[in-house]
Amino acid sequence: MAERITPRDKDYSRWYTDVILQAKLADYSPVKGCMVIRPNGYAIWEKIQHILDGMFKATGHVNAYFPLFIPESFMKKEAEHVEGFAPEAAVVTHGGGEELEEPLYVRPTSETIIWSMYKKWIMSYRDLPILINQWANVVRWEMRTRLFLRTTEFLWQEGHTAHATREEAEEETLRILEIYRKFAEEYMAMPVIVGRKTENEKFAGAVNTYSIEAMMQDKKALQAGTSHYLGINFAKAFDVKFQDKDGELKYVHATSWGVSTRLIGALIMTHGDDDGLIIPPRLAPVQIVIVPIWKEATRATVLEYSERVYAQLKERFSVKLDDRDQYKPGYKFAEWELQGVPLRVEIGPRDVENNQLVLARRDTREKIPVALNEMVPKIEALLEDIQQSLFNRALQMRQENTFTLDDYHEFKEVLEKGAFIRAHWCGSGECELKIKEETKATIRNIPFDEPEEEGKCIYCGNPSSRRVIFARAY
Amino acid sequence: MAERITPRDKDYSRWYTDVILQAKLADYSPVKGCMVIRPNGYAIWEKIQHILDGMFKATGHVNAYFPLFIPESFMKKEAEHVEGFAPEAAVVTHGGGEELEEPLYVRPTSETIIWSMYKKWIMSYRDLPILINQWANVVRWEMRTRLFLRTTEFLWQEGHTAHATREEAEEETLRILEIYRKFAEEYMAMPVIVGRKTENEKFAGAVNTYSIEAMMQDKKALQAGTSHYLGINFAKAFDVKFQDKDGELKYVHATSWGVSTRLIGALIMTHGDDDGLIIPPRLAPVQIVIVPIWKEATRATVLEYSERVYAQLKERFSVKLDDRDQYKPGYKFAEWELQGVPLRVEIGPRDVENNQLVLARRDTREKIPVALNEMVPKIEALLEDIQQSLFNRALQMRQENTFTLDDYHEFKEVLEKGAFIRAHWCGSGECELKIKEETKATIRNIPFDEPEEEGKCIYCGNPSSRRVIFARAY
Repeated sequence: MAERITPRDKDYSRWYTDVILQAKLADYSPVKGCMVIRPNGYAIWEKIQHILDGMFKATGHVNAYFPLFIPESFMKKEAEHVEGFAPEAAVVTHGGGEELEEPLYVRPTSETIIWSMYKKWIMSYRDLPILINQWANVVRWEMRTRLFLRTTEFLWQEGHTAHATREEAEEETLRILEIYRKFAEEYMAMPVIVGRKTENEKFAGAVNTYSIEAMMQDKKALQAGTSHYLGINFAKAFDVKFQDKDGELKYVHATSWGVSTRLIGALIMTHGDDDGLIIPPRLAPVQIVIVPIWKEATRATVLEYSERVYAQLKERFSVKLDDRDQYKPGYKFAEWELQGVPLRVEIGPRDVENNQLVLARRDTREKIPVALNEMVPKIEALLEDIQQSLFNRALQMRQENTFTLDDYHEFKEVLEKGAFIRAHWCGSGECELKIKEETKATIRNIPFDEPEEEGKCIYCGNPSSRRVIFARAY
Repeated sequence: MAERITPRDKDYSRWYTDVILQAKLADYSPVKGCMVIRPNGYAIWEKIQHILDGMFKATGHVNAYFPLFIPESFMKKEAEHVEGFAPEAAVVTHGGGEELEEPLYVRPTSETIIWSMYKKWIMSYRDLPILINQWANVVRWEMRTRLFLRTTEFLWQEGHTAHATREEAEEETLRILEIYRKFAEEYMAMPVIVGRKTENEKFAGAVNTYSIEAMMQDKKALQAGTSHYLGINFAKAFDVKFQDKDGELKYVHATSWGVSTRLIGALIMTHGDDDGLIIPPRLAPVQIVIVPIWKEATRATVLEYSERVYAQLKERFSVKLDDRDQYKPGYKFAEWELQGVPLRVEIGPRDVENNQLVLARRDTREKIPVALNEMVPKIEALLEDIQQSLFNRALQMRQENTFTLDDYHEFKEVLEKGAFIRAHWCGSGECELKIKEETKATIRNIPFDEPEEEGKCIYCGNPSSRRVIFARAY
């Protein structure tokens, strides 16, 4: 609290790290590449888990748990998959004091181990679909750590479903993508662009990868969730067939999909300001903090009144009463602002006299007096308004920084300031890679809602029928 | 479902595995020593997590997450600790395609990595206490796998708290032990013996270990949870001192405590019967299953009535309506009995006519008709009765198989049939080890509620002031 947060416009990257360390969301660990998620950060992850888990279950999914270790030979069964993940692998070579006959990968993702089990569980169409999700830790070796965004170990959920037909599997892939969009926009108040990844950018082993992409305040993109239609690639690799209604043996179609603790990084960079975090009310572990303001003579009255307010509010909201004696109100204000609590309730002697309280919004700093007997509906409306305002603010930021361009020089210039660029692209992986080499921008995705439009590839001039989104990304 | 479960009195160990595999609670994985927790088993773990997590939070604890990997040098900082865990370690030697300078242990428990962080976070008495819990996977290499009971990887929670004084840390150790007792007895309906472990049996690095011990149906003991007072052992190993109110630098006192997916094994072996699992209502993911019984002519009426019952019950209970067309009622009965659902509701045409339904208890097989307009309070009372009966039955089993003995020959004889034996013990580790060698029985714990009593050690005859509990254990 004594330290100052580096302002965003001075050094965005330091601002990000300052917020995380000072708000005690996470910390660097002595293990290279690994972070510690501290209680303040983990409480946000628990909210994310709780909401998403409910959405998965409401659509028929169940949770399970598969082994942390994957035999090296399993990874090698799907050629693209091992190529994608082997370079990042952490490998266990010794166990129980002996060298292992076969090295074990610490899971970077669980397709292979899960499909080796589906082989045992799937015989007939009656065993399908399987709609399993797993909350777990995964490991992908990283040399440069960025808290929440890029760590060797991270927490995530990974869904792995098995279906009788391609159509059903593709429906599932999109159903989950829609859950991710809804979660990002309606809970995280983070607008996202929904679309399909290019061949170069898709998951190692997928037929199609879909993503949601958000713009951070530095105008870089962050991929916030992906959903893959895996075709029958893993069914073939693990020989998973089922007897269909028509009596024929057929390969099983697969999907996989995931979001991770990276979402906490996205949350910070979407809404945070120079005083710290701002958490949208629907995601906030603490929605309201009550700070009583007293002098010695008014202490008992103010505290007693505050406790009454607290008792009433906690029936409806997630609320904390900060009645610590050793800190002054100003210190408490700053601390809870740093933590991103969306609404503060201030109660002083005059408020007690007037049977009122003062609401202070974290997002706009506005202070609103409200009568005690009207507080619950007023607060409810205000939290809803904060939720919506945060979304609108982020959406406006993205709109103001999204450009429709047809000229490659301009493209490069605009990119320098940070932007999403809607541009035509011919569909060739070569053009895509050249642009990446020259500008560090990648195609974030091919948005579902981009209209058909005749145009020319911004790089090679060949015909294109649709714009895609280019940006530099985390 | 087609297979038969081996009866308990024929082969208890096969019965146990049969129940797990047929109820689809877990499965063997292709990774030696590791199991897969299937959705039916994981749903039980989620209930355990949910209840315990609430109890931890109600006593001021918060969750966090620490790295999976622990540098070998950290493990070595506490001499007893590394001695205890090194032989079971899984070791990562390669990461990101290169050999690591220092091997990393996959955490067998997290004291060392956590105390290396507490060193950073604790300066002053104001930073204390720290009351952190973590839900995580851990790895301890096993050669012989027993599903849920003995697996290389398992899921657990591990609490790690830091305190200014010994008194406070010891209070915390016992507070958690009481939470474990309450959870075991009031939710799992599993009576436990609460007490202190002997020096030989305590945790590697602890000053004192406390445990709850339950008797399984084969009269073996199962340690269901442990809580450790770690003294200042880890504070010394990681040099964690705080400035106290009196200005002096002092070492921080530690506790750690955990329960694991092993509890699911305990649940099965406490309540299961030859038809499968029996889950106590307060822990059951599904408390009630409704099975409609119809002929073609009555199908619509029975189903419509069943749906009305379902809609009403789901307001209060966790309930499933099994309206699958392709299976007969008898098949469904057997399947849900295997799953351990504590209460079945049967609805046939005659029930519809009479505005009633039939309740079938999983534990006693009793069938109880009940009027539609009385069903909610009746079911509520019945579930409570099942919960209590399961506890009473298990307690009676333990009481009938607990013997107070003073003769070592008799001790050995009684042990053969399986038993808890209350016997005097002189306190010497040597006697304890001799008894273990000769009989495979260990001292489960020194129960808190054993009265002071003059006696002679059952092995050496030296004086003893209190009986302890001997048993063979899982």
